[in-house]
Amino acid sequence: MSFIIREGQKEDMKDVLVLIKELALFEKLPKEVEITEEDLIKDGFSSHSKFKTFVAKENKTIIGTALFYERYSTWKGRIIHLEDLIVTKEKRGLGVGLALYKAVLQFAYNLGAKRVVWDVLSWNTNAIDFYKSTGATILDDWQVVHMREKALKNFIEGN
Amino acid sequence: MSFIIREGQKEDMKDVLVLIKELALFEKLPKEVEITEEDLIKDGFSSHSKFKTFVAKENKTIIGTALFYERYSTWKGRIIHLEDLIVTKEKRGLGVGLALYKAVLQFAYNLGAKRVVWDVLSWNTNAIDFYKSTGATILDDWQVVHMREKALKNFIEGN
Repeated sequence: MSFIIREGQKEDMKDVLVLIKELALFEKLPKEVEITEEDLIKDGFSSHSKFKTFVAKENKTIIGTALFYERYSTWKGRIIHLEDLIVTKEKRGLGVGLALYKAVLQFAYNLGAKRVVWDVLSWNTNAIDFYKSTGATILDDWQVVHMREKALKNFIEGN
Repeated sequence: MSFIIREGQKEDMKDVLVLIKELALFEKLPKEVEITEEDLIKDGFSSHSKFKTFVAKENKTIIGTALFYERYSTWKGRIIHLEDLIVTKEKRGLGVGLALYKAVLQFAYNLGAKRVVWDVLSWNTNAIDFYKSTGATILDDWQVVHMREKALKNFIEGN
């Protein structure tokens, strides 16, 4: 098996969306994906693009993607957030995920980012063990908080 | 007591940094703050600014700040991340934090953000109870992962 890693282009977003939906299914929330191919093109490829991607390509097929963007730490400054790292099911265990992971970390290093951060499902022990083996730290004392669209609307309209 | 909330300006960053350092002390990691006033001005007020702030001002004194920026959800699209919400110790419990919190949520709502997210220390039960009371959800099944600067360097140089 041979594949290449390159930065994602507009024409890749259709396949990237397929991978996003595959991951949502793995995370047991397939109906949560509201985003469209048009959104990904508009938001990723404008002058103030909201994210970048790397894609893994085998022959003419996209078999994996990493989607990431900059965030800002008030302690460290510019950091990178890895939002998604996805390899299609039948191509897992072949080094594609590692290659995408390396590509994002190399990008962050070249940028001079002070940290790379992401979230992991606490029951995904394979992923956690892998991340730890590469030097990443799992933070035990922080929790993620979401104010969802409906709750935001309720809060604003009630205050 | 009366105070105003307005968007932070370059000349506020000195006071914002004092608040950032006060929060780091509360979080028991005061030495982790590497950022400088110059960084905050450069990163917050360029054409591709990395964050926005609101500040709470009583007379001529900045007594609180909220620092936030856009992120991107592959499920929902554009979302807002609330990085820090800080009120100086002697002005807590007077509604300053709530006013800053509302300002950020209003900003997110006006932008059409699909979600507002942030992290909370799991032992900060006062904060957790407050967030829940406003409609936010604490995610129990996600953990935050950090690849710190030193680990990133080690990973890149070893691979």
